[in-house]
Amino acid sequence: MAAPETSDPWDHLRALPMGRRVEISDGAGHTWTGTVVPRHELSGDRILPLKLDNGYNIGILIEPGFRVRELPPAPSPPTNGVSSPAPTPSGTSPVVLLTTGGTIASRVDYTTGGVRPVREEREILAFYPELAHSGPVRIVPVFDRLSENIVPADWPILARHVVESFAAGARGVVVAHGTDTLGFTAAALAFLLRDLPGPVVLVGAQRSPDRPSSDGSSNLDAAVTLARDGRFGEVVVLMHAGLSDDRFAIHRATWVRKMHSSRRDAFESRNAPPLGRVESGRVHLDQPAAPPASGPPRVDGPLDDRAVLLWMYPGLDPTVADRFVDGQRGVVLAGTGLGHTAATHLDWIRRRVAAGTVVAMTTQCLGGNADPYVYATGRELLEAGVTYLDDLLPETAYVKMLWALGHAPEPDGVRRLLRQSLAGEFLDRHRPAGAA
Amino acid sequence: MAAPETSDPWDHLRALPMGRRVEISDGAGHTWTGTVVPRHELSGDRILPLKLDNGYNIGILIEPGFRVRELPPAPSPPTNGVSSPAPTPSGTSPVVLLTTGGTIASRVDYTTGGVRPVREEREILAFYPELAHSGPVRIVPVFDRLSENIVPADWPILARHVVESFAAGARGVVVAHGTDTLGFTAAALAFLLRDLPGPVVLVGAQRSPDRPSSDGSSNLDAAVTLARDGRFGEVVVLMHAGLSDDRFAIHRATWVRKMHSSRRDAFESRNAPPLGRVESGRVHLDQPAAPPASGPPRVDGPLDDRAVLLWMYPGLDPTVADRFVDGQRGVVLAGTGLGHTAATHLDWIRRRVAAGTVVAMTTQCLGGNADPYVYATGRELLEAGVTYLDDLLPETAYVKMLWALGHAPEPDGVRRLLRQSLAGEFLDRHRPAGAA
Repeated sequence: MAAPETSDPWDHLRALPMGRRVEISDGAGHTWTGTVVPRHELSGDRILPLKLDNGYNIGILIEPGFRVRELPPAPSPPTNGVSSPAPTPSGTSPVVLLTTGGTIASRVDYTTGGVRPVREEREILAFYPELAHSGPVRIVPVFDRLSENIVPADWPILARHVVESFAAGARGVVVAHGTDTLGFTAAALAFLLRDLPGPVVLVGAQRSPDRPSSDGSSNLDAAVTLARDGRFGEVVVLMHAGLSDDRFAIHRATWVRKMHSSRRDAFESRNAPPLGRVESGRVHLDQPAAPPASGPPRVDGPLDDRAVLLWMYPGLDPTVADRFVDGQRGVVLAGTGLGHTAATHLDWIRRRVAAGTVVAMTTQCLGGNADPYVYATGRELLEAGVTYLDDLLPETAYVKMLWALGHAPEPDGVRRLLRQSLAGEFLDRHRPAGAA
Repeated sequence: MAAPETSDPWDHLRALPMGRRVEISDGAGHTWTGTVVPRHELSGDRILPLKLDNGYNIGILIEPGFRVRELPPAPSPPTNGVSSPAPTPSGTSPVVLLTTGGTIASRVDYTTGGVRPVREEREILAFYPELAHSGPVRIVPVFDRLSENIVPADWPILARHVVESFAAGARGVVVAHGTDTLGFTAAALAFLLRDLPGPVVLVGAQRSPDRPSSDGSSNLDAAVTLARDGRFGEVVVLMHAGLSDDRFAIHRATWVRKMHSSRRDAFESRNAPPLGRVESGRVHLDQPAAPPASGPPRVDGPLDDRAVLLWMYPGLDPTVADRFVDGQRGVVLAGTGLGHTAATHLDWIRRRVAAGTVVAMTTQCLGGNADPYVYATGRELLEAGVTYLDDLLPETAYVKMLWALGHAPEPDGVRRLLRQSLAGEFLDRHRPAGAA
């Protein structure tokens, strides 16, 4: 292929097709080599969005004097091995990528200026041309929604897709998901999926793939790498860790929470370190993870979504709280401190528990335990029938409540399930007492 | 004073009066010198709770062979300068300590095994015998409640006490408060108090003062030191920082959140570094703080508590949400990600806004901004009339909502006040754009 060179970069730039491999030099000794990715309208004509060979996307502001040189395609052609839903090539087990929408599979909508999920597999391939450079990947679109519109009824559907993927020979499964509610979906899959023979890796992006600063491509690459790891069989979340372009944290699905609205490293394992990391393309497991199961995976449903999650605060009227929980089988409270409410809430809690509602307690601190034994308030709530859920995040506790309600018809059974460790979700049982 | 020595420490131990200064040696080269503080029933006869000279409380398990030696009182007598509500001694402006209950002023209740607030000033003095070693302190008991039972109606009462304290010549004011809702009260005082001539320092403890590991004494000492600092006039929270016994963080009242249910260093400034620190008894201001006002301080009330705080999650039924906000003038949503809700909530939000309810948006991530301009969801919520509150914590936004409702009769006025910076509460306006 010809490799024309130009010293008038702007006109050339506008004409560069997506997927073309180029080298940019700034005339001062810096060069960048990568693949042109879809342009973000707002970035203007002079910014070239480039997917670097290390997988990270950048936007280069092209100044006069810069040189843009077109290169032959990279050694591993972008679409090699990507197939869907065609059979796996050459006997190698593929990673199945389930897409649900979300920023990781979204682009700017020029009518609203907002970001909208893409619907087509070919659009996903256009964003991530090198998705399969390290092995076969099969793409299965499941939903095309921003994650704030994912509902509990979607979780078992997604879980069934995971089971079907493994049944069809997947080595591991990646779920690309919006970050807003990714933690909820991850926890739901952790409770719904049993006997996993390999990794289920949820991944998202904080910036859409048509933006120069997108983290979608590097996150997805690392997630695919992790999904090929044969050493564990549980649901995890993989997202950027810290400021490095090449470090990703592996979070247990029931421990993770989105703790920033926009940073790449928004996700944190709370109360415990991440299970491990992906660094420079290698997977490091730093904590014990569930080993792969030998039996076939299955969905351990159903969920019953007749439950609410209520965060307590000074001034919350007990009547308003009582109205909020009306008609529900389960209530998860995010109490203050060690899991407290104002004493004025004791009446409705007692009454609801007596009438068969399961009321569970977590801490809104998002760190440490809910513990009824330290203060009189906790003892009174315990006596009122509240079930304390130790160090479960409020969000994880809510998802677990839906699972427990789906698995036990009576309040006592629900409470028993809530207190059992089902998916390694009680962090403090893995740590020496008093470590907090 | 005689300094008898004994080699049979246990009997001696049981007879040691509170407040007695002792030296313990373990026979292996370690010695501890401090003041005997009230004993925690559960700690048993063999553990001696000691307030060390550095202000930190420890419990020493007395083994056979240990030596306990009684010492003369410390050079600065514990109660020197402590007075209430007697006039200030010798012309030095006192720090006023307003107590509200909470762990910092609580003890174990032997009937329940839980911790209960103390009611009497003399009990507070018994816990903190060295409170005034660096200058006069005047104690004013205001409430005797655990902070989960503090309600918005209490906040203006507390604010009036602060104003009266300054009017009576206080140099600074310390508010000892339970940690559960300390962040809410701090934010409320920040919005309610104007023209502060000196520091208002909220302080709490994570372990009650009759426990050997209590942080109450060291926190209170540092808070009193900070309240004497004449360089600023705003409401701050002071609590332990990190694992050091002698480092305390100064948090702006509107930025702080309790992020752990039991650690000493549970409080964090979110989105911004703390304003400063107290280290080895010295105050360091690392960020700009509001200078002291020259005019007399005043309470800028009232609050109107007809508002609710609602955290969004997948599966929240729009009908249930709508019922929760019924009858309120204001609603603060803690949305997912950049401040989102499921699209199914748009209807009730539109309807409530049209009927005059103010609906404000924050992010439940507790880091970063709520921003309606990135996704279609945000734009739709903005068009529905939702007021985005940038990087305000949900808790701070809720408190600000009560303040704004108390200061404007019409929704437009409330919205205008919500968007104004009133107490340095918008963190990102102090930082370069895109720093997140």
